[in-house]
Amino acid sequence: MSDKKVIKVGVIGAGRIGKIHAETLATRVPGAVVEAIADVNITAAQELAEKLHIPHVYSDYKKIMEDPTIDAVAICSSTNTHADLMIEAAAAGKHIFCEKPVDHSLAKIDKAIAAVNKAGVKCQIGFNRRFDPNFKKLRDLVKEGKIGDLQILRITSRDPAPPPAEYVKTSGGMFLDMTIHDFDMARYLSDSEVEEVSTFGGVMVDPAIGAAGDIDTAIIMLKFANGAIGTIDNCRKAVYGYDQRAEVFGSGGMAATANNTPNTSVYSDAEGVHAEKPLYFFLERYMDSFVAEMRDFIAAVREDTVTPVTVEDGRVPVVIAMAAKRSLDENRPVRLSEIE
Amino acid sequence: MSDKKVIKVGVIGAGRIGKIHAETLATRVPGAVVEAIADVNITAAQELAEKLHIPHVYSDYKKIMEDPTIDAVAICSSTNTHADLMIEAAAAGKHIFCEKPVDHSLAKIDKAIAAVNKAGVKCQIGFNRRFDPNFKKLRDLVKEGKIGDLQILRITSRDPAPPPAEYVKTSGGMFLDMTIHDFDMARYLSDSEVEEVSTFGGVMVDPAIGAAGDIDTAIIMLKFANGAIGTIDNCRKAVYGYDQRAEVFGSGGMAATANNTPNTSVYSDAEGVHAEKPLYFFLERYMDSFVAEMRDFIAAVREDTVTPVTVEDGRVPVVIAMAAKRSLDENRPVRLSEIE
Amino acid sequence: MSDKKVIKVGVIGAGRIGKIHAETLATRVPGAVVEAIADVNITAAQELAEKLHIPHVYSDYKKIMEDPTIDAVAICSSTNTHADLMIEAAAAGKHIFCEKPVDHSLAKIDKAIAAVNKAGVKCQIGFNRRFDPNFKKLRDLVKEGKIGDLQILRITSRDPAPPPAEYVKTSGGMFLDMTIHDFDMARYLSDSEVEEVSTFGGVMVDPAIGAAGDIDTAIIMLKFANGAIGTIDNCRKAVYGYDQRAEVFGSGGMAATANNTPNTSVYSDAEGVHAEKPLYFFLERYMDSFVAEMRDFIAAVREDTVTPVTVEDGRVPVVIAMAAKRSLDENRPVRLSEIE
Amino acid sequence: MSDKKVIKVGVIGAGRIGKIHAETLATRVPGAVVEAIADVNITAAQELAEKLHIPHVYSDYKKIMEDPTIDAVAICSSTNTHADLMIEAAAAGKHIFCEKPVDHSLAKIDKAIAAVNKAGVKCQIGFNRRFDPNFKKLRDLVKEGKIGDLQILRITSRDPAPPPAEYVKTSGGMFLDMTIHDFDMARYLSDSEVEEVSTFGGVMVDPAIGAAGDIDTAIIMLKFANGAIGTIDNCRKAVYGYDQRAEVFGSGGMAATANNTPNTSVYSDAEGVHAEKPLYFFLERYMDSFVAEMRDFIAAVREDTVTPVTVEDGRVPVVIAMAAKRSLDENRPVRLSEIE
Repeated sequence: MSDKKVIKVGVIGAGRIGKIHAETLATRVPGAVVEAIADVNITAAQELAEKLHIPHVYSDYKKIMEDPTIDAVAICSSTNTHADLMIEAAAAGKHIFCEKPVDHSLAKIDKAIAAVNKAGVKCQIGFNRRFDPNFKKLRDLVKEGKIGDLQILRITSRDPAPPPAEYVKTSGGMFLDMTIHDFDMARYLSDSEVEEVSTFGGVMVDPAIGAAGDIDTAIIMLKFANGAIGTIDNCRKAVYGYDQRAEVFGSGGMAATANNTPNTSVYSDAEGVHAEKPLYFFLERYMDSFVAEMRDFIAAVREDTVTPVTVEDGRVPVVIAMAAKRSLDENRPVRLSEIE
Repeated sequence: MSDKKVIKVGVIGAGRIGKIHAETLATRVPGAVVEAIADVNITAAQELAEKLHIPHVYSDYKKIMEDPTIDAVAICSSTNTHADLMIEAAAAGKHIFCEKPVDHSLAKIDKAIAAVNKAGVKCQIGFNRRFDPNFKKLRDLVKEGKIGDLQILRITSRDPAPPPAEYVKTSGGMFLDMTIHDFDMARYLSDSEVEEVSTFGGVMVDPAIGAAGDIDTAIIMLKFANGAIGTIDNCRKAVYGYDQRAEVFGSGGMAATANNTPNTSVYSDAEGVHAEKPLYFFLERYMDSFVAEMRDFIAAVREDTVTPVTVEDGRVPVVIAMAAKRSLDENRPVRLSEIE
Repeated sequence: MSDKKVIKVGVIGAGRIGKIHAETLATRVPGAVVEAIADVNITAAQELAEKLHIPHVYSDYKKIMEDPTIDAVAICSSTNTHADLMIEAAAAGKHIFCEKPVDHSLAKIDKAIAAVNKAGVKCQIGFNRRFDPNFKKLRDLVKEGKIGDLQILRITSRDPAPPPAEYVKTSGGMFLDMTIHDFDMARYLSDSEVEEVSTFGGVMVDPAIGAAGDIDTAIIMLKFANGAIGTIDNCRKAVYGYDQRAEVFGSGGMAATANNTPNTSVYSDAEGVHAEKPLYFFLERYMDSFVAEMRDFIAAVREDTVTPVTVEDGRVPVVIAMAAKRSLDENRPVRLSEIE
Repeated sequence: MSDKKVIKVGVIGAGRIGKIHAETLATRVPGAVVEAIADVNITAAQELAEKLHIPHVYSDYKKIMEDPTIDAVAICSSTNTHADLMIEAAAAGKHIFCEKPVDHSLAKIDKAIAAVNKAGVKCQIGFNRRFDPNFKKLRDLVKEGKIGDLQILRITSRDPAPPPAEYVKTSGGMFLDMTIHDFDMARYLSDSEVEEVSTFGGVMVDPAIGAAGDIDTAIIMLKFANGAIGTIDNCRKAVYGYDQRAEVFGSGGMAATANNTPNTSVYSDAEGVHAEKPLYFFLERYMDSFVAEMRDFIAAVREDTVTPVTVEDGRVPVVIAMAAKRSLDENRPVRLSEIE
C-alpha cells in the first residue's frame, strides 16, 4: 500500500449497518479513521463515538458534508435517502461508500450517478458478498479460465426467517430487497451481463407477505450476454438457516461453494451423522466481507484506483429486479432492454 | 416374499442393455429365470445364453411370444420397436418390462397403454434412477413429510461426453433422449405433477449438435400441481464426469444428494486437497439400480401388485419433453395442457 | 485375460462365508465355475447347489479332494480346520483359497506353508479388505510415491456390536479375531513390515468379555521397518456402526478414507445437518471386495501368477497379534523378533 | 455481563504475540482498555501504542508493575521470563494473563503458582486452542454426555514447516514446544487426567533437528484416569499445511473435527475434485481463539470468577511432556507419577 495520508471518514447513520461500518473503519481498516458520526438518534451516535474514539458527533449529517477535513462518507441511512446523500456528498467533493440498494427508482439512481461522475469522486456500493472468500474464489476461477466458457450458473439464496409483513410493504418487494444481492452476484460470478430473465414464484411461506403484495419464494432463470444460462432460487424461510451457495459450470470445469458453519464438528450417534447448521444470518455469515469491502474502498481512495463495486454496478441489479418482477407478473421471459 | 412359482422371462434384445437385464435376471433376482433370449444378432444371443445357462436362443423374438411357458418379457430392443412389442406381448398375455422411452409418439404410446390395460398384464418402464438409493432417499423424505410442503426442487444432470451428432439426429432430441430421465425424476421426487415449463437453452458444447437440429445445454424451470417450483439443468458434457444430483427444499427441511465416487479417498498435497471424480457414466453409476428395478418388477409379477413404474409413468415424461421443446422454440412458458 | 481353460472350484463349507464365495464364483467371476460343494450340513450344501447350478454336492469334503477334474478349493470351514485342509489340498495338487486366519498356532501355520510350497500350488488368504477400493487407493498412492516417505499411518477399525462372550472364548482373542485384519492392512498400506508394537487397551464395552479373558478396546502403536510409525485403534462397539477408516501421511502428502454409506443424501432441518451412518457391518461394507479377491485368485490360477495375498501374508499378522497381546500383558513395547 | 469498571491492562512484550493480544484487547474485548505497553524494543512498543491509542509506552516493564491504576498484565515476553514476571505481577496485586508454556522447569512453575495463589490474583495461561469453536464443540459434547463414557481420543497436530534447527536448540524440545498444546487439549477434551504415556518417534523431516538433539515426528499413546485411551500424532512438517484435528469416541457416539479452510469452494475438472488446503498456520487458523480467550480472561477479572485456564492447567502439560520424553528415551511406558 502507498504511504499516502490517512483517510478521514464521516459515517452517516448509527443503526445496525452503520455500527458495523464505523467499528470496521475504526479498528480494522489500515489507513482510515472515523472522524465523525451523525445520526438523528444522537444517543446512538454518541455511544458509538465513545466506544470507538470518534472525535465528532452530530445529529445533523450536514455537519459532515461541511467539514473540509473529511475525505469520504459512508452512507448507512435508510434506502430512500441514499441518492440524495450521494448527490450532496459528491457536491462536497467527498468520496462515497453507499449501502445497497442505491434506490428503488432508476431516475433517482441516474441522478446520483450523474452527480458522482461529474464530481469525479470515488463511489462504492455495498455489495459486500463480492468480498466473501467463497464467492470470490468462484469469480477468480472464472476469470482465470479454470471454468472455461461459462455455461451454467446457479445461485441459491434462502433466508432463515421471513421479515415482518410490515417491512415487506416498504421493502420494494423481494427482488429489490433480497434478490438484489443475487443479481449482483450473478453479474460478478459470470463476468458478464444479464440480458433476459424468466421467473416462476409464489407465496409459500407466509400469506401475510402475499397480502402485502409480495412473494416469498421464486426461481429466476437468467440468460447472459456471453451465452451462459443460469438460475437463482430464493426463499424467505429455510428452517435450517441461511443458505448461501453458488455454482459455476463450464467447458473447463465446475466450482461450487458450500455454506459456512460455526465449527467443523461432525457427531455420529445411533441416529446418524450430524453436522452443524449454516451460520445463522448475514451478520454471522458475512462479517468478514464487511471488513474486506471497506478495506478495498479505503485503498481505492488512498491509491486513486477504481472502486471494486462502482455506482453503475449499483444500478444494474435494480434493472434486473424490475425485469424479474415483470416476468413474474406477465408470465413470460423479459429482456432487460424492455425496462430501460 | 410369497412362495409363488419362479417367473420365466424372455429377453428381447441382446445388446448393451439387454445383456445387463439378462445377467441381472439370471444371477441376481430371486424368483426369476431367463428362459429364452432373442436377437437378430444370433451370435450375441448365443454367447449370452451360454454364459448364463439360458435354455432357449432365438433370432426371432416371436418364438418368445409364442412360448406359453414364458411369463414375462424384457423389451430391450430399439426405441422404435417398443410400442409394437408391448402390444404383441400384451396380446400374448405376458407381463412386460420395457426400456425407456416408450416411444417418441404419444399416439403410439397410447395404443400400447390401451393394449396393456386391456390385457391386464403387468407393465414396468425402465426408469431405473428411481431405484437408486440416493434419489430414493430424497423421495422417502418427501413422502415421510420430513421436507414439509415442497417448495423448490433442483435436479442437475450432466453427461461426461456428448453423443455423436449422427446419434443426435435419431435420438428425438435432448429432452426426449436425456432429460426424459430428469422429467421422470421430477415427478418421482416431488410426488406431484408438472403443470408448466419454461426453457432456456442452446448449443454450447458441439456445433455439430446444433447442425443436427438439437441443443446440448439447457435449464428447464418447472411449476408443479402442488405449488412447488423447480429447475432441471442439463449439459451433454461435463469434463469432470457424470454429474447426477438433486435437491428438495420445503417448509420442513432440505435434502440433497452428492455424486457417487469410486472410493472415498481424499489426498492432500502441496497443491490442495483432492477427491475422486464421480463414477464415469450410467453403467458405473446406476448398475445397482438396474438390479433393484428388476427385482421389483419380478416381485410385482409374483405377488400380483402394481409395478413401481407404470406404463402411464412412461407417457408423462414424453409430454413434459414436448412442452419443454415448445417453450424453447417459442421462448415462452408452456403448460402441459397445451400438448394434449 | 488369457484364454486358458475355465477353473473348476470346489467349495468346502456352505455357511455364511461359503455361500458368499460360492455365489461369487458361480455368477461374478469370469473363468470360474463351482464344480462341487461340500458341507456336513448337506441340506445347506444342496440348497446352494440348486440355486447356483452346482453339479456335485457332498457331505464329505474328501470327495472334492479326490476329484481330479477340480482345479482349486475354497476353504470356508471353521478356523481350526484351515491348516489341515490346506495340507490335504496341497497334497492333492489343488490351488487354495483359504479364509483368514490361517490358524491360531504358528506351528500349524508353518506346516501348512511348507505343504503349499512343496506342492507348488497357488495359495491365497482371504484378507479381503485389500481389495476394497478405498484402501487400495491409499496403497496405490503409497506405491506411486504420492505420499513420499511414509511417516505416520493410522487405522481405525470399530465394530457396530460386540460378539457374544461365548464366541469370545474360542475366538483367539480380539487381536487374532478382529485386529488381524488391521495388522494385515498396516502391512499392505505401509508396504513395509511391522517391527515393534506397544499396546494400551482394556474392557470398556462388556464386562462379560473381560470375564472371558479378553479385552474389547485397544490402541496398538506400530513401528515399521521403513522408519514410519503408526496406530491402530479398535473397539468392539461403535453405536453409529462399522467404522473403517485409514490415513497415510508422509513427506509428499496425506491420504485418508472415509466410511461408505448407503446413500449420499444430506438432510438439513431445524436441528442440524444429517447424513447417513456407515454401512452396517462387513457384509454390507465389503461385499464388493469379496468379489474382487476371488476374481484375482482365479486370474492368478489361470495365468500362473503370484496370488495377491500369499500364505506367508497369512502368517505375519498372527505374529503381530501375538506381539500386541504380549505388549498388553507386560505393559511394554514388544519386538516381533521376540515372538519367533 | 456485569457493569463493573473497565479493566486496565498493561501488555508486556510487543513482539508477534504481544501485538495480537494488544490489538485484541484494544479493539475487540468489551470492558478492557490497554493502558500501557512495555518492550525493550521501544520502537515496536511506540508503533503499537500509536495505532491502538495506548496512553503509556515504556521500555521497562517495571513501570507497568508500579502503576496502581493497572488491573491486569498480559505477559507476552520470552518463555524464560514468564515465571519471574508472574511472581512480580502477583506481588503487585495484578491479575495475570500469561503465554504458554509457563516455564520448562517444574520448580520455577511451582514458585509462580505459589505466588499467584498467595496473592489471590486471577491467572490465565494462553492455551488458546481451548477457545477454538471446533475443539470447544467436542469438549461440550463430552461434557453434555453425548459421547457417553469416553473410550478413545485422537489428536492430530502437524505443522506446515519445521522451525530452524537454531530455534530447536532453545525450544525445550518438540514435546514442550509443540505437543504441549496437544497435551493440554487431551486434558481439555477428555475432561480427565493423563496418567501414563508411551511414545514412538524419530527424526523424519530434517536431520538438523536430530543433530540439535530433538525429534520431529512422534506418536504419544495416552492412558487417562477415567479409563479412556488415546493418541496424539505430531509432525513438524505437513506439505499440505497446518493439520489440526481431533476425535472423541465413546459409548454414546463419536465426534470429530476437520481442518478450517480459507473458503468452502470445491473445483472439479478433468483431473479430479479439488478443495482448499487448511488455513496455513496458527495465526490464520487460531486468530478468533486469541480474541475469545482474552474476552474470557477479562470477564473472569471483571466478574471475579475462575479463569478458564488456570495456572495449574499451565503446569500439567509440562509434566506430560516430560513423561513423553522419558518414554521415548527409555522405550517404555512412563507414568506421570514417576516425574513428580
